[in-house]
Amino acid sequence: MTEAELRGLAERAFAAHGVSAPDAADTARILVLGDLFGHQTHGVSRVESYCGRLALGGINAAARPAIDKPAAGIARIDGDNGLGPVVGMAALRTAMDLARESGIAIAFARASNHFGAIAPYCWLAAQEGFASMIGSNSTPTIAPTGGREARVGNSPLGFGVPDPKGDPVILDMAMSVVARARIRNALKHGEAIPPTWGTDRSGEPTTDPQAALDGFLLPIGGYKGYGLALVVDLLAGVLSGASYLTHVKSWQDEPAAPQGLGHFFLLVDTRRLGGGDWLAERMADFAQILHSTPASDPARPVLLPGEIELGRRERQLREGVTLEPGVAEKLAALAAGPAA
Amino acid sequence: MTEAELRGLAERAFAAHGVSAPDAADTARILVLGDLFGHQTHGVSRVESYCGRLALGGINAAARPAIDKPAAGIARIDGDNGLGPVVGMAALRTAMDLARESGIAIAFARASNHFGAIAPYCWLAAQEGFASMIGSNSTPTIAPTGGREARVGNSPLGFGVPDPKGDPVILDMAMSVVARARIRNALKHGEAIPPTWGTDRSGEPTTDPQAALDGFLLPIGGYKGYGLALVVDLLAGVLSGASYLTHVKSWQDEPAAPQGLGHFFLLVDTRRLGGGDWLAERMADFAQILHSTPASDPARPVLLPGEIELGRRERQLREGVTLEPGVAEKLAALAAGPAA
Repeated sequence: MTEAELRGLAERAFAAHGVSAPDAADTARILVLGDLFGHQTHGVSRVESYCGRLALGGINAAARPAIDKPAAGIARIDGDNGLGPVVGMAALRTAMDLARESGIAIAFARASNHFGAIAPYCWLAAQEGFASMIGSNSTPTIAPTGGREARVGNSPLGFGVPDPKGDPVILDMAMSVVARARIRNALKHGEAIPPTWGTDRSGEPTTDPQAALDGFLLPIGGYKGYGLALVVDLLAGVLSGASYLTHVKSWQDEPAAPQGLGHFFLLVDTRRLGGGDWLAERMADFAQILHSTPASDPARPVLLPGEIELGRRERQLREGVTLEPGVAEKLAALAAGPAA
Repeated sequence: MTEAELRGLAERAFAAHGVSAPDAADTARILVLGDLFGHQTHGVSRVESYCGRLALGGINAAARPAIDKPAAGIARIDGDNGLGPVVGMAALRTAMDLARESGIAIAFARASNHFGAIAPYCWLAAQEGFASMIGSNSTPTIAPTGGREARVGNSPLGFGVPDPKGDPVILDMAMSVVARARIRNALKHGEAIPPTWGTDRSGEPTTDPQAALDGFLLPIGGYKGYGLALVVDLLAGVLSGASYLTHVKSWQDEPAAPQGLGHFFLLVDTRRLGGGDWLAERMADFAQILHSTPASDPARPVLLPGEIELGRRERQLREGVTLEPGVAEKLAALAAGPAA
């Protein structure tokens, strides 16, 4: 399927669930960018749960995000419990407008829902010359260091730095060492996992994938990743006016309830820092220093964050988008309207 | 020794090496805060190397940082190769001034040197109501993921979020799983290290501490920590106009050369986001949710980032500052003037 066809199909699915054309276009754009970057767990496979929650009233199809600007460089967006990408794009556009004026801006969003992957927002910001730091809180799945109950989300955090004459550097990461899917995979293959991936229910590191699935994901670097997850929630949840930590609702366990999710979009206008040639030269030299690192395995050269994802985007724009089996069929069914 | 005595001693050491009284006071303040927080590797033990480089002309004792403001929320500081804390405090004060106006600001510093720990800057910002994200680049010690040569620094990154009625949350971390000191310690005790701490010279993970010391520190979360280290250098080095990656000079190997280090200070004025009561209530609830997590070991309750450090500060302000053996004597000798 071409990127345009996939976007059209996703847009029709949202329209069939009461979403306005511009909001459907924003949401489809963010999710399809997720697929283009190869993050299929955060691509159009999400249309099903988004539409399910729209049908249940858990997400407000007719949301009108409200924006206030308490300072020249700060905006607050009340998402009105809309689709996450609708709230996210309203916040991103507002942050761009303010950062064009002040050189830097932050938009805090509250009353939002799952907003897709972060890389798409960083990529859109980089296209306009903005360096970005973007984060969201999420349902608690990580136990604090030394604790044995999930209290903080595996919060995603992303960064982008534009190159005026090349591809941006884009880092989009969550705070766990690995995703739960990799632990499920180890279980399926009967393999032990490294003790750094997860703990059992008592909070002790384990090599047993089932015990880890019953327990908690471990954050990167132990207390460092725990601390980073808290920082993301302090910005995306506490300062934004959204829910935070255990107050955030799970879209899986309570699909009919607003999640109360929060995000932040922090942008710096790199065009204020020097000419495009100045930055392009520095970015090219930066990449060259890393690319020229002798590789441990000569067949696998050293890369910068985002190179794999942007390569997938180029390829899929040329050759069509790869979807997991069944996803296209579900999309087509959703585009025909809510299940009876 | 009391905190005031220690500051006085450090100030006299810098004054004896040609540093003006206000610059000596700023530098002493940052280093002593490092000791108060318990980061003795980034405390007054650094006075010796700072003074050594001042005496060699590697650091400019009479530096006059120059500031330009290309946008309402952006400042650039040319540090004139001054002491890192002098450049850092000039940048922090400028960022505070701009963020009071715009709600958010970033100050980029270049032509700087080692600037101490990051927690002191985050703490000073939090005292004035600013949430902060502060980072610095550093001499390359980390190999890119898949590489076998050090190309990026173990860059420190810090965050602070103020609580109008309590202690701020402060996270100050470098990107390696552990500091080299912990690997040296394992070697001394003849112990193997986890394979997540470091690689040998070929870039392969190792459990042999000597091989790891000959090789490279591993970043937290593998490619995630590598990516974070690059993001810090993109902000602190590339966008600031400073040196970056392998262009950064080592203060140990080339003490008489300017390091060309860069930093960034990003501040958000939390007083623009709601009343002090609003934020204090949210911060108290946030902390309560984490503190009430059932602990794996009941004797070790769950903490927030910064609690240990701020507790050490309180205790040392009451009971005097603990220094490593010999540090006070070296300080006293440095206060008497440069070595003949």
